[in-house]
Amino acid sequence: MDHFSLTQNDPTCNARLGILRTSHGSVETPVFMPVGTAASVKAMPQDFLRELQVRILLGNTYHLYLRPGHEIIGTLGGLHRFMSWDRAILTDSGGFQVFSHQKLRRITEEGVQFRSHLDGSSHWLTPEKAVEIQQALGSDIAMALDDCTPYPCTPEMTRTSLLRTSRWARRCRQAFVPGMQRQYGIIQGGMHKELRQESLNRTVEIGFDGYALGGFSVGEPKQLMWELVAEFAPRLPQHQPRYLMGVGTPLDIINGVTSGIDMFDCVLPTRNARNGCLFTSQGRIVIKNSRYLRDEGPLDPNCGCKVCKSYSRAYLRHLFMSGEMLSAVLNTYHNLYYYLDIMAKIRQFIQLKNLAGLREQLIQVYEE
Amino acid sequence: MDHFSLTQNDPTCNARLGILRTSHGSVETPVFMPVGTAASVKAMPQDFLRELQVRILLGNTYHLYLRPGHEIIGTLGGLHRFMSWDRAILTDSGGFQVFSHQKLRRITEEGVQFRSHLDGSSHWLTPEKAVEIQQALGSDIAMALDDCTPYPCTPEMTRTSLLRTSRWARRCRQAFVPGMQRQYGIIQGGMHKELRQESLNRTVEIGFDGYALGGFSVGEPKQLMWELVAEFAPRLPQHQPRYLMGVGTPLDIINGVTSGIDMFDCVLPTRNARNGCLFTSQGRIVIKNSRYLRDEGPLDPNCGCKVCKSYSRAYLRHLFMSGEMLSAVLNTYHNLYYYLDIMAKIRQFIQLKNLAGLREQLIQVYEE
Repeated sequence: MDHFSLTQNDPTCNARLGILRTSHGSVETPVFMPVGTAASVKAMPQDFLRELQVRILLGNTYHLYLRPGHEIIGTLGGLHRFMSWDRAILTDSGGFQVFSHQKLRRITEEGVQFRSHLDGSSHWLTPEKAVEIQQALGSDIAMALDDCTPYPCTPEMTRTSLLRTSRWARRCRQAFVPGMQRQYGIIQGGMHKELRQESLNRTVEIGFDGYALGGFSVGEPKQLMWELVAEFAPRLPQHQPRYLMGVGTPLDIINGVTSGIDMFDCVLPTRNARNGCLFTSQGRIVIKNSRYLRDEGPLDPNCGCKVCKSYSRAYLRHLFMSGEMLSAVLNTYHNLYYYLDIMAKIRQFIQLKNLAGLREQLIQVYEE
Repeated sequence: MDHFSLTQNDPTCNARLGILRTSHGSVETPVFMPVGTAASVKAMPQDFLRELQVRILLGNTYHLYLRPGHEIIGTLGGLHRFMSWDRAILTDSGGFQVFSHQKLRRITEEGVQFRSHLDGSSHWLTPEKAVEIQQALGSDIAMALDDCTPYPCTPEMTRTSLLRTSRWARRCRQAFVPGMQRQYGIIQGGMHKELRQESLNRTVEIGFDGYALGGFSVGEPKQLMWELVAEFAPRLPQHQPRYLMGVGTPLDIINGVTSGIDMFDCVLPTRNARNGCLFTSQGRIVIKNSRYLRDEGPLDPNCGCKVCKSYSRAYLRHLFMSGEMLSAVLNTYHNLYYYLDIMAKIRQFIQLKNLAGLREQLIQVYEE
């Protein structure tokens, strides 16, 4: 059984429809993966995720390694069983979180030493360890450990980093035990085109089950990211899944899909929800705005989610202002529904060979 | 249509089965009302409350008056519509919260002046105002404003307080506009039997749609509360609902039912849930205990709730230790299921004329 099949291309751009097959079900692509950092998509009961027809979510290796620990999760039958989620899971390598805490880490050829943000204890993350942790977690898709380049970064430092990423990728691939799990490699190279190409060549040469573009959405201008993704996504192997890590806004996503990306993940819909920032067909809504105090209307009159069908803006504002946990639950539900609905529309418009039409609609809404 | 019908008595004690009729559906009694302080049962989406077969919940007048304000809720069609809850709601009078903040209030014959815990602004709560607020909220059952006696309290102060409660009750009854809403009076009198009796006589003389025993669970010994409830509940009018306010543990509730109480409310199941303290058929569980780190079993093997059917103790512990909101959601769901299940069993055992049998079981579990 192939891990990935392309089912259709949009002849007017690089967008494609596909099916990702895992031992926890099939996933139609392009797909957005909600982020379930610590074995929970924050504020979302798993039955709500099923209701939302989430087919794949992301777990964070860094967080799960520190708490409760991958060995405990392994003993308890893996992450799926631990969190009672029988659909697909992709885990990151832990690298991104480790590199994000710049003061708490030290990089060597062997790997990266870091201090826990929880208790300051010292740990080593090596390519082999990243593979081992993710195998204990039992995710359907594991990511290779990469050295994440910050932005901005000189060509020299970027090349040093991408070469290390490439050596680590090879070690990850060697440590990987084939079975139900699949393993994706990550392309770095910062914002330098020749280095992106070099990283792409080196990573594809190793040979993975899928490829990710890493190192985007790290502070660079949007236009620069869109341009690079547009240039490099189509150069990734045609018949394997392509994943744009940590991205992004609805417009980032449709631009990525237009360029040939199949998979996305981002904390934006869930984190914004908790901060009271909601995505609607009419653009972003900041629910604490006093204009909603007496607003009987639904959050988004064009949305079919149960939050929009049941509750008013006035109530959602009240919950947010009162610090009620239900605020996070309902806002997250709506924002995820919005994102998944956009993805369903994207797939539908690719089928109709008219993704550009949908993109125009989104540009008008967000005017980024 | 009668507001309340008795359908059966347990001949071995004072327990009774009844039906409470409201314009938002019928409620089988004895009933436990989850507390939805600020128009939300904390961490519970309304669809979960429906799943749990909650038929009536409690809203707090004090909180809703301060935020978002009863006038706004009134303008938006009342509390039911505001929070999207089409089953019954009982509102308290706001008195208990005002009296709880002793430093922030001043009592006169007219009413009680208090400062908002939110912004320090000054407000007056009078009997007439308490009625007006609750009518704007549109609750199915409104409570009269009472002067809440602290514990301990001298007979002199208690009598002064109960006489004020009685005068306020009369003013509440006069200000009440009959319609869909019902209004209950509250009996005070502290822990002094002759004063309880006097308060009972004075309140019943005014004539309400139901009667509550107030001023319990305020720090007095359990035995004293049980003894007083056992003595005074049966003296309340036989054919009207009897409500024991702010009570309590499962054992408090079954003792109350045995004494002839029909209605209960308490933050215990919901607040304890958020603190990781869970009710089970085997007694209380403190989920953060390290013994649950690798515990694959359900929270309560004898519980039929979806939390117990889907998640392990190890996962629930992890969510609590990680500060995940899902912890509060799942724990609250389970604790409410437990409470509502106890109430269903209570009604079943009354039907079987064997409430004492169930009480023995609960005593063995909790050994209070």
